[in-house]
Amino acid sequence: MKNALAIVVSVVLMLPGGFAWAQAKDDSLPATSNVQNAAYPRVHPDLRVTFRVYAPDAKKVQILPAPRVTNGLGEGPYDMVRDEQGFWTVTIPPALPGYHNYFVVVDGFGSNDPGSQTFPGYGLICSAVEVPDKNGDFYAVKDVPHGEVRIRWYFSKTTGLWRRAFVYLPPDYEKNVKARYPVLYLQHGSGEDETSWTSQGRVNFILDNLIAAGKAKPMIIIMENGMIALKAGSPLPAARVAGILAPTLPAPAAGQPAPGPRGNEAFEDVVMNDLIPMIDGAFRTIPDKDNRAIAGLSMGAGQAFQIGLTHLETFAYIGSLSGVLRDFDLKTAYSGVFNDAASFNKKVRLLWMAAGRLEERFYQAGKAAQEAMTKAGIKSVFFETPFGHEWQAWRYDLNDLAPRLFK
Amino acid sequence: MKNALAIVVSVVLMLPGGFAWAQAKDDSLPATSNVQNAAYPRVHPDLRVTFRVYAPDAKKVQILPAPRVTNGLGEGPYDMVRDEQGFWTVTIPPALPGYHNYFVVVDGFGSNDPGSQTFPGYGLICSAVEVPDKNGDFYAVKDVPHGEVRIRWYFSKTTGLWRRAFVYLPPDYEKNVKARYPVLYLQHGSGEDETSWTSQGRVNFILDNLIAAGKAKPMIIIMENGMIALKAGSPLPAARVAGILAPTLPAPAAGQPAPGPRGNEAFEDVVMNDLIPMIDGAFRTIPDKDNRAIAGLSMGAGQAFQIGLTHLETFAYIGSLSGVLRDFDLKTAYSGVFNDAASFNKKVRLLWMAAGRLEERFYQAGKAAQEAMTKAGIKSVFFETPFGHEWQAWRYDLNDLAPRLFK
Repeated sequence: MKNALAIVVSVVLMLPGGFAWAQAKDDSLPATSNVQNAAYPRVHPDLRVTFRVYAPDAKKVQILPAPRVTNGLGEGPYDMVRDEQGFWTVTIPPALPGYHNYFVVVDGFGSNDPGSQTFPGYGLICSAVEVPDKNGDFYAVKDVPHGEVRIRWYFSKTTGLWRRAFVYLPPDYEKNVKARYPVLYLQHGSGEDETSWTSQGRVNFILDNLIAAGKAKPMIIIMENGMIALKAGSPLPAARVAGILAPTLPAPAAGQPAPGPRGNEAFEDVVMNDLIPMIDGAFRTIPDKDNRAIAGLSMGAGQAFQIGLTHLETFAYIGSLSGVLRDFDLKTAYSGVFNDAASFNKKVRLLWMAAGRLEERFYQAGKAAQEAMTKAGIKSVFFETPFGHEWQAWRYDLNDLAPRLFK
Repeated sequence: MKNALAIVVSVVLMLPGGFAWAQAKDDSLPATSNVQNAAYPRVHPDLRVTFRVYAPDAKKVQILPAPRVTNGLGEGPYDMVRDEQGFWTVTIPPALPGYHNYFVVVDGFGSNDPGSQTFPGYGLICSAVEVPDKNGDFYAVKDVPHGEVRIRWYFSKTTGLWRRAFVYLPPDYEKNVKARYPVLYLQHGSGEDETSWTSQGRVNFILDNLIAAGKAKPMIIIMENGMIALKAGSPLPAARVAGILAPTLPAPAAGQPAPGPRGNEAFEDVVMNDLIPMIDGAFRTIPDKDNRAIAGLSMGAGQAFQIGLTHLETFAYIGSLSGVLRDFDLKTAYSGVFNDAASFNKKVRLLWMAAGRLEERFYQAGKAAQEAMTKAGIKSVFFETPFGHEWQAWRYDLNDLAPRLFK
């Protein structure tokens, strides 16, 4: 008995941080975004979040909410407090509902929380905590028919490289083998990728639920990577994350092609010349403008407006989620597409914009843009959420936008 | 001019680590497993790897190869050296070709390299570096017809939860709408998940290339998460990673169901009662034993043997990739299935085992198991690679196994 106890004690002492996963003495729960069995971060019923990491030899450990326009975890950084075993802990004030990126900064080294799953963001792969939303039922996995998200590889003549699209197909796609479907091209934001709408946006569950409720038409959704090329010397999105990564792009490395003179606007050529023909060939789409929509968030909103508004022969539904609509000059914007309101309203079945109340300058700029449009006789819809420049807003946005498409 | 220079200089000085992405003065290249535009880690022509991270206030920074049975990055840990700007660098001796997990350890905090994409491993989400293999053409993305990997959600009565499977469908699946296909159930290892065979194993490219060359029959491949449940108090896979995470599982948290008495062996019920019926209902499979295979790696090899060998009415092809075949007692193993060699050989069309020469105890145990089988009249195939207990071996394994199935 004495021996057995001695063994237990020495094992606990031997193992660094033997109590890291010990149960919190309260009614908090591990975040659903944690890796399997990780006890931290934990979310409390009042939406406070407790973080804990093991860093026995560190001098200073902080939680740094990813610096978007707003972050539902607050500003931070939050200093963590060390216990005698080398675990650092902090409980932060109540968070906003939704998905929030953050970094752990240990003696100036910014990286991930080993307790968290990881997601694309800021040109990096980041930690995040999912905070429950009492109104978030619309993106929950429910007992309804489920569509599939497919990973589809194709060759892009524009880039000279193989690329992949994530493709949501509605629940009945495999059964109604003669049915054809409208298509929404849906883009992520800067520093994210083609996986983001699935892993962060919950696109498949939102559409499954809308379709099951008869609120949205069954549709195909195409998600591609809009971060096509960054010019040498361009600031990385990660540059905003002070201390996380170095901020400038390298000159082209030996043996690699130079990034060339074009930036992410080359995405337009990929969409128009490579992606749409591939999709219309590979899936049972309805390949006309009245059954094709394009939307995106933040940087992707700019891409959606650019591509959509300059190709009204291709898209009749155009959406901007938290788009940068500053200094929007109706006369000159998008080759003057807004100058003939009657023609515009005839061609465009939906021009839809959204912003959150916590991203004030996006919200004000969006409202101003819509006001100018309305004054010029251009029909549009403006949708607002109580959120900031974060995925929770974009989930709500999609839940509003999808039912308006292809009707 | 003076002003312009002053601005450039102050911007560089202002930005933490202004030269992090500077070009290396040699012919190394960023690893293909890096996040977009990350200049480090870099792989040299002789397969040395240079790592660099920014940790200005740290006392000690190391690269720790993930401690598998073998790791192609060597043993480590490797001490990094700080420059005056706060960047820490190390170049390690030539690595083995293939995919290798590692951690960055900063003052005792083990986490990811911000320059790397992340992948499931060790119950965590880890950094990895992909080292080129001059014989690795078989898993390259090539100009051949590509299949799809689909993310399929379904409800598991066994666990009472929604789960997802990753499903590879061969290139002609959508075109030959009346064709039916055989199915391989293919499992990952401990601490990994249903994404691993796609993101680490390159299952889709390996099969696309084999099918295009006429070497493998078009088949469906199902990849699910074998980490069903860990008993409270069980060591996490992460426990082996000294200093990375705390090593013991928590007692069940308040409000959460206890993990219960069963561990990952509950996966057998998920496969037999939930997964196979769902797959045979959702896809155009040939739903009989002669067109159904099961294989897995490491922990997944154990699951494949357990599930396959105790359900010969369901599977006629059974594969073990780097399985733990220690103390293999032919008389008692798997309810005595090996006791009647004639019956076994009639039912089982392929019993296939693989191990690498750098995972000596797996290799020796596998050879010994095969020897005992051969002595008892049981037919089997043993395939060996020059690699260790890593994904490079399992890519080669799949490339050998798939052509032997359903012939």
